[in-house]
Amino acid sequence: MSATRPPDTTRMASEIAEQPAAVRRTLEALLPRRAELAAVAGSRPRVLFVARGTSDNAAVYGRYLLEVHAGVSAALAAPSVATHYRADLDLTDTVVVSVSQSGSTEEIVETQAWARSCGARTVAVTNIDGSPLATGADLALVTRAGEELAVPATKTYVGQLVAMATLASALAPRPGVLEEHLERAADEIERLLDGRAGVAELADRLAREETVLVTGRGLLLGTALEVALKIEETCLRPVRGYSYADLRHGPISVVGEGVTALLVAAQDGPLVQGMTELARDLRGRGATTIGIGGDTSFVEACDLGVEGPDLPEVVAPMGLIVPAQLAIEQTARTLGLDPDAPRGLAKVTRTEAG
Amino acid sequence: MSATRPPDTTRMASEIAEQPAAVRRTLEALLPRRAELAAVAGSRPRVLFVARGTSDNAAVYGRYLLEVHAGVSAALAAPSVATHYRADLDLTDTVVVSVSQSGSTEEIVETQAWARSCGARTVAVTNIDGSPLATGADLALVTRAGEELAVPATKTYVGQLVAMATLASALAPRPGVLEEHLERAADEIERLLDGRAGVAELADRLAREETVLVTGRGLLLGTALEVALKIEETCLRPVRGYSYADLRHGPISVVGEGVTALLVAAQDGPLVQGMTELARDLRGRGATTIGIGGDTSFVEACDLGVEGPDLPEVVAPMGLIVPAQLAIEQTARTLGLDPDAPRGLAKVTRTEAG
Repeated sequence: MSATRPPDTTRMASEIAEQPAAVRRTLEALLPRRAELAAVAGSRPRVLFVARGTSDNAAVYGRYLLEVHAGVSAALAAPSVATHYRADLDLTDTVVVSVSQSGSTEEIVETQAWARSCGARTVAVTNIDGSPLATGADLALVTRAGEELAVPATKTYVGQLVAMATLASALAPRPGVLEEHLERAADEIERLLDGRAGVAELADRLAREETVLVTGRGLLLGTALEVALKIEETCLRPVRGYSYADLRHGPISVVGEGVTALLVAAQDGPLVQGMTELARDLRGRGATTIGIGGDTSFVEACDLGVEGPDLPEVVAPMGLIVPAQLAIEQTARTLGLDPDAPRGLAKVTRTEAG
Repeated sequence: MSATRPPDTTRMASEIAEQPAAVRRTLEALLPRRAELAAVAGSRPRVLFVARGTSDNAAVYGRYLLEVHAGVSAALAAPSVATHYRADLDLTDTVVVSVSQSGSTEEIVETQAWARSCGARTVAVTNIDGSPLATGADLALVTRAGEELAVPATKTYVGQLVAMATLASALAPRPGVLEEHLERAADEIERLLDGRAGVAELADRLAREETVLVTGRGLLLGTALEVALKIEETCLRPVRGYSYADLRHGPISVVGEGVTALLVAAQDGPLVQGMTELARDLRGRGATTIGIGGDTSFVEACDLGVEGPDLPEVVAPMGLIVPAQLAIEQTARTLGLDPDAPRGLAKVTRTEAG
């Protein structure tokens, strides 16, 4: 496959840099809508997310955040249950939250309509006001990332994370600590964009011809999956994204020399110790371990540490993705690829080939 | 890593061959318990599965089967929500089904206890009568696979699939077609064990040094994930398992020459056409495509077809895993590995490193 010559400044790089503004605008637009959100949810005790790709990775964060922070049971839907099996489920106790940057992915729009016919209240999270997903929902949370032109989503992804936090804040039984930390997220993204500690080294490692895996857990699982997807679609490198537990339950057996393991962790919370032990274990098996974020022990357990945000676990995903995005954009250019238009992907994905 | 010399006959091979008997015994033991299961569930409209590894792959089948066949909303739990975040969820409307071959995996036992404290009714699916998981549940479905000694689970996995079908049958609002097809599953497994059409060719392909991915969808997604996990843990080959949709939303961009794509499909149902189109697409990108099961068009779209069972989609997973198990066991031996005791894995996995 011949590589296209990359432009000197990419749209992806510009869009990564626009994230602090995207987060601030989205927060300003969405936080005031929490009372409306609570009214749409009513006394329904459950949330079901409908999403694919990057939006699905945002929903994975939303799922943990709702359960851990808001005490609301949450799960991810299997869209084929709606679109192909046309199952007859009772969703009268459920708020269905559909997430799609474009708001036009057919499968997601169709699943939202199905959910409504099953009795669900529906919330759409999209970056496009007036899109089919937005107009078909009981309530639309429109993120304010601005138009995104690069195929790999960046600023719309952090916009979706803000929407997830807004949802958790709205459905939590009492006001929590989420809001004050959210205010700091944009500042921390800004700091990471300027600092870039460890980013060049990470990019250098990713550009080498090696087997890469990415892992995270709990509130950071979605971030790990997003890092893996972003490397794969931007750098055209096969990468595996695993939950901590899935990795330990089998795939860890194939980790050895020649594997680069990327671990994503928050600086606090109940999971960072286990991630530190995993880093030591993977390193003991011969893998090169790179840690994004984490605490001092975590960084010491890794071969390379990439600086993460000074944010608590509950909002850390908004910052932790940033150094990875920066490195991935750089890696793509090093490899002679155009990060704005990787081969074989369209901006609006059609899950149905025909 | 030096390879150990494999024995002439492996435990894994014997246990694969014992699957018709395991299925018959388990059906005989579990089907009569459907009324009890329905009583434990009462009017609770939801099922939440708790599982890891191979058991999680069985639960993925259970999840689709409950939604598609029984009209019961189902989801997979995130155990860290229980074990690390100790979230306070209201599960009084939920039946929590925990799946573990040994019934001793700490994380699963702990999550079941948490679910009970959150108000859930609990059902344990395990192969070991009297295990902590079985004794801690409101009802235990003990599979009758017999003692499993090889590290890669085979006969206990098909036993778990039978338990999933029993559960769906018990919770369905009216008797369905599931039961009559279940009676034929053991016969079809027997036929596939004798016929082995395509198995040697699949084993030969897997033994070559290539990038392998496995994909499936809906009721067959769990089978695809199990094939991927089994190759990885038995043959120590890094393999990626993807849902059809996840593959289309990104990773397909890295598929090209040198990739072997293994597609799993039923001979009927609403998804086989899409899987056929995916096979053509992957082949068009230069991948070698191997189909397990499917209909005539699906087989024609693949470079190699491996015979699947003559079973409808709803119970096809019980047969479709068999040719893959046979090939994987053979591949491990070709590679000079001992399929009974792959490096780095214990029979009872401890998710917590410390």
